[in-house]
Amino acid sequence: MHPSPLRIEPIPGYTPAIGRLVGMLTYARSTTLAAVEGLTLAELDHLHDAQSNSIGALLAHIVVVERSYQVMTFEDRPLSPDEHAQWSTALKLGTEGRRTLRGRSLDHYLDELRSVRHLTLESLAARDDAWLERSVSPAPRLNVHWAWFHVAEDEINHRGQIRWLRTRLPGRRVDDQVT
Amino acid sequence: MHPSPLRIEPIPGYTPAIGRLVGMLTYARSTTLAAVEGLTLAELDHLHDAQSNSIGALLAHIVVVERSYQVMTFEDRPLSPDEHAQWSTALKLGTEGRRTLRGRSLDHYLDELRSVRHLTLESLAARDDAWLERSVSPAPRLNVHWAWFHVAEDEINHRGQIRWLRTRLPGRRVDDQVT
Repeated sequence: MHPSPLRIEPIPGYTPAIGRLVGMLTYARSTTLAAVEGLTLAELDHLHDAQSNSIGALLAHIVVVERSYQVMTFEDRPLSPDEHAQWSTALKLGTEGRRTLRGRSLDHYLDELRSVRHLTLESLAARDDAWLERSVSPAPRLNVHWAWFHVAEDEINHRGQIRWLRTRLPGRRVDDQVT
Repeated sequence: MHPSPLRIEPIPGYTPAIGRLVGMLTYARSTTLAAVEGLTLAELDHLHDAQSNSIGALLAHIVVVERSYQVMTFEDRPLSPDEHAQWSTALKLGTEGRRTLRGRSLDHYLDELRSVRHLTLESLAARDDAWLERSVSPAPRLNVHWAWFHVAEDEINHRGQIRWLRTRLPGRRVDDQVT
């Protein structure tokens, strides 16, 4: 992977405000990928304590959060009952997540992250800055720009937890500094 | 505190891209404040394990990260030796942070957060979108927009950790869902 540039600025192929947002989404994703690099299936499934979400479950969560905001902002509708049924465990995590979000390799999560992001970027490239400022139809207190900022923001929140959890995996070294 | 609006859009008093950035900084800060609400001094100083940073130390870190980017982007210079000496423990955290970043009440941290943010907003209001796109003089690989996105991004990363740590404080309930 190319290192993500440390610049937020308009990007060719997107309108200016969308380009800056894409820079933030891309930077956030690059740090998530760095945080999970090389993790084994056992490490992805490891539960730090009885209430912890595994790193794998957090990756599944990052994927479905992005999918959910795609539906709400690109398709202008709330999740369908089917989507809700399929995604709610990863959206809510907790007990049910600990039971079922397991047994997937890093490649599985990386594929999912890549595929959901591909659709996000393709869809953002087809829209403009006026669209970005609109209210989200199924949740009109939010505007679309906040919704996509929140996708990055929620990912960064969980990446902070992933970094913390990673250094405490059995056999991994605790990095005694900022994580 | 007023709930932070779930909209990213231009804000009166700032040029458009700076206004959107201020919306992100403000939203991120509102979630940090919510995450530490009501914590006692003992809770702020609590160490979850031998390598953990306390929640108080993470708040001190959030303050000095913002101060450092103020110096680099508003004053166009690297940190002075004095600033470096004064802030490096909170910037680096780890062993020295565990030893010295203690004994401060929530009000102390809230005052520091408020005061550093006041200067940030005042300084951003006096600048424009062309400034936001410039390279950071003492670190020209970064541009100023990335630098201020990173201030929010680093805060959100640690807020994710603060939420995780808060639910595991002695006597606090573990929230068995997404944190």
